[in-house]
Amino acid sequence: MDTARSPLAPAGFPDLPPIAGVTPHVARARYKNWDRCDLTFVTLDPGTAVGGVFTQSKCPSPEVEWCRKALILGQARALVVNAGNSNAFTGNRGREAVEAIAARAAKHIGCEPSDIFVSSTGVIGVPLPIDKAETGLDAAFTAAPCGWEDAAATIMTTDTFPKAAMTTAMIGGQKVTLVGIIKGSGMIAPDMATMLGFIFTDAAATPDFLQHALGHANRSSFSCITVDSDTSTSDTVLAFATGKAGNAVLEDSDSAGADAFRAALSDLCLRLAHLVVRDGEGASKFIRIDVEGAESDASARRIALSIANSPLVKTAIAGEDANWGRVVMAVGKAGEPADRDKLSIRFGATQVAKDGLAVEGYDEAPVAAHLKGHEIDIGVDLGLGDGKATVWTCDLTHGYISINADYRS
Amino acid sequence: MDTARSPLAPAGFPDLPPIAGVTPHVARARYKNWDRCDLTFVTLDPGTAVGGVFTQSKCPSPEVEWCRKALILGQARALVVNAGNSNAFTGNRGREAVEAIAARAAKHIGCEPSDIFVSSTGVIGVPLPIDKAETGLDAAFTAAPCGWEDAAATIMTTDTFPKAAMTTAMIGGQKVTLVGIIKGSGMIAPDMATMLGFIFTDAAATPDFLQHALGHANRSSFSCITVDSDTSTSDTVLAFATGKAGNAVLEDSDSAGADAFRAALSDLCLRLAHLVVRDGEGASKFIRIDVEGAESDASARRIALSIANSPLVKTAIAGEDANWGRVVMAVGKAGEPADRDKLSIRFGATQVAKDGLAVEGYDEAPVAAHLKGHEIDIGVDLGLGDGKATVWTCDLTHGYISINADYRS
Repeated sequence: MDTARSPLAPAGFPDLPPIAGVTPHVARARYKNWDRCDLTFVTLDPGTAVGGVFTQSKCPSPEVEWCRKALILGQARALVVNAGNSNAFTGNRGREAVEAIAARAAKHIGCEPSDIFVSSTGVIGVPLPIDKAETGLDAAFTAAPCGWEDAAATIMTTDTFPKAAMTTAMIGGQKVTLVGIIKGSGMIAPDMATMLGFIFTDAAATPDFLQHALGHANRSSFSCITVDSDTSTSDTVLAFATGKAGNAVLEDSDSAGADAFRAALSDLCLRLAHLVVRDGEGASKFIRIDVEGAESDASARRIALSIANSPLVKTAIAGEDANWGRVVMAVGKAGEPADRDKLSIRFGATQVAKDGLAVEGYDEAPVAAHLKGHEIDIGVDLGLGDGKATVWTCDLTHGYISINADYRS
Repeated sequence: MDTARSPLAPAGFPDLPPIAGVTPHVARARYKNWDRCDLTFVTLDPGTAVGGVFTQSKCPSPEVEWCRKALILGQARALVVNAGNSNAFTGNRGREAVEAIAARAAKHIGCEPSDIFVSSTGVIGVPLPIDKAETGLDAAFTAAPCGWEDAAATIMTTDTFPKAAMTTAMIGGQKVTLVGIIKGSGMIAPDMATMLGFIFTDAAATPDFLQHALGHANRSSFSCITVDSDTSTSDTVLAFATGKAGNAVLEDSDSAGADAFRAALSDLCLRLAHLVVRDGEGASKFIRIDVEGAESDASARRIALSIANSPLVKTAIAGEDANWGRVVMAVGKAGEPADRDKLSIRFGATQVAKDGLAVEGYDEAPVAAHLKGHEIDIGVDLGLGDGKATVWTCDLTHGYISINADYRS
């Protein structure tokens, strides 16, 4: 498998501060036959609030079911992430593995199992070996704390670079910091959280506020990206707030600083989501698709996703081919209101089609130059109403086929 | 572009009889810079009834709009098919081209333009050159009639082999014959007719009966195949009935032989649809997906299509990898009722997962042997109800990327 760093990766790992009340550890559970850390154990100080969004798959992993249930209580003391085995579709043995992990972690920390959040990522259908998980957990608990880069690297599977971002917000005169790590490269599609993302902040917030803010942020970030239209059984984004910053607790949208925190969280989620697209399996182009003039925002989003998920659009971009006819095709197949003769399409800054036909003699040079770059911008105006949406995706290349035609082997 | 014959192609072109009242011709319109016939002109004797199904794209080609309108009268005297230019998304100039073609063909034959059916296939967004179409049409009209193989080859674009099938039915003691030709390889998705298919029969039938029978056949054939989930702007299937067989006219479902004719038409459509999948761009495997135990037939079909359109399932099959976890993922993302712990999955004749987890110690040898073949069979039982559906697709390979990353050039 090609493990070269994605050409769309940022230059390096960002400089991230610690978050008070959050202590990451990593260890080798050896879920696969590899010599790398694959178990992440993040301990959280008492009083940490948690919010989460999960896959909408009808066949979710037992980890997702566990977290959904634990979320009701709104409190977290630790996060355990297993890489190399998703534990999904493993029946009772999968449930037992999650319960065993939560029990072991709770015993180490001295808390209830329901305070432990568990995520796993990797191949579907193989029960997570409980002995390896327990051994790894014991090792992680006794290991020295690690930095964010180690934690971000340890949750990776087919990812080619560790992904993280940070931001800050002022809440009632008090600065709070948010750090997020994320993994995901294939089996990435919207309508749910992306594969595995974890956000840590020292802000003080109630679980209800955190849940609401994360749901809001999710709708314009993780729900607006797609790599391959395939939705994982394990998609999870969790946000943990330790309260150590000492701000007045964020309780609802009227709380001082609520808007600032929500804006910071949304910004962080969007940057994390973009990192996933930049590590899309086989990706060579980062593609932004803006749809405007639709009948509604929801309609615009469905049209944008139809374009973003079209194999023919994605392969055309991979081939640096300004084949805008495929964009027309993808608009047409979306099933949303559209009028062929009002439709306009832009590649980069160049209008290539307007009012239902090609712009006579448009300058192909800037379009060709734009398509040779790594950052591709496609604009569609339906000419019908005020609905608009933006989604992000990557191209479809030989790399995707190579990675996925022999992932298990 | 790789133009090697698909490994899934049948051994040769079938032996097809002429259909009384149908006379095919081909000519070189030179829509692209190639030296091959690319214009098909099929003349039909007076009294020929016609039915048709078309793309559900919101951005259809002017040809589709023309045929939809002409279909209201239910009578046909000729079919013109242009290959190499779809004429879609070309504004008024596209409409003018279709009108000019219909007018020229009608003048040659001595009929109304509304008796002429026109289809075009190829790149989107380039107006069909009227002068080339008229010159090609003149040449085709004066050319000697050709056989079915020439007609099937002339409507091809990225297809790697000419596709046709035939069948017969007994109607009130009278044998009728049906011949179909079809093209399509990429931009193939269900919910509408496949790219371009044309069926000719000597049966006597009213336009209403023919339309109803074709709609029925379409639902279990063209609407159940997908190559790449992308829906063309130009998908068209037309059925022409010359009435020369002399059977008592088929008028409704109570007519003698109505069931036999409908069964024969459905069988023919399914065989034509399978030929399109067998020529799917880059295809190396022909995949049949059977879903049963769903809450309804419609739900089963949506789940089957979610599996058939999943890039991860398609690449796993390309890699001959029994990665049934990706089938679970595709079931889960379909959004249809599913219970993970009742789900069973079969590859070939081997049950690999049952009641929500892997079958302990199932024999991998027959699964591996099955996946090495060209004909792949995936079965899913949801364990919920009586709903079932079957769809057909092909795998996703490097060939698809190679073909589509530089189609225009």
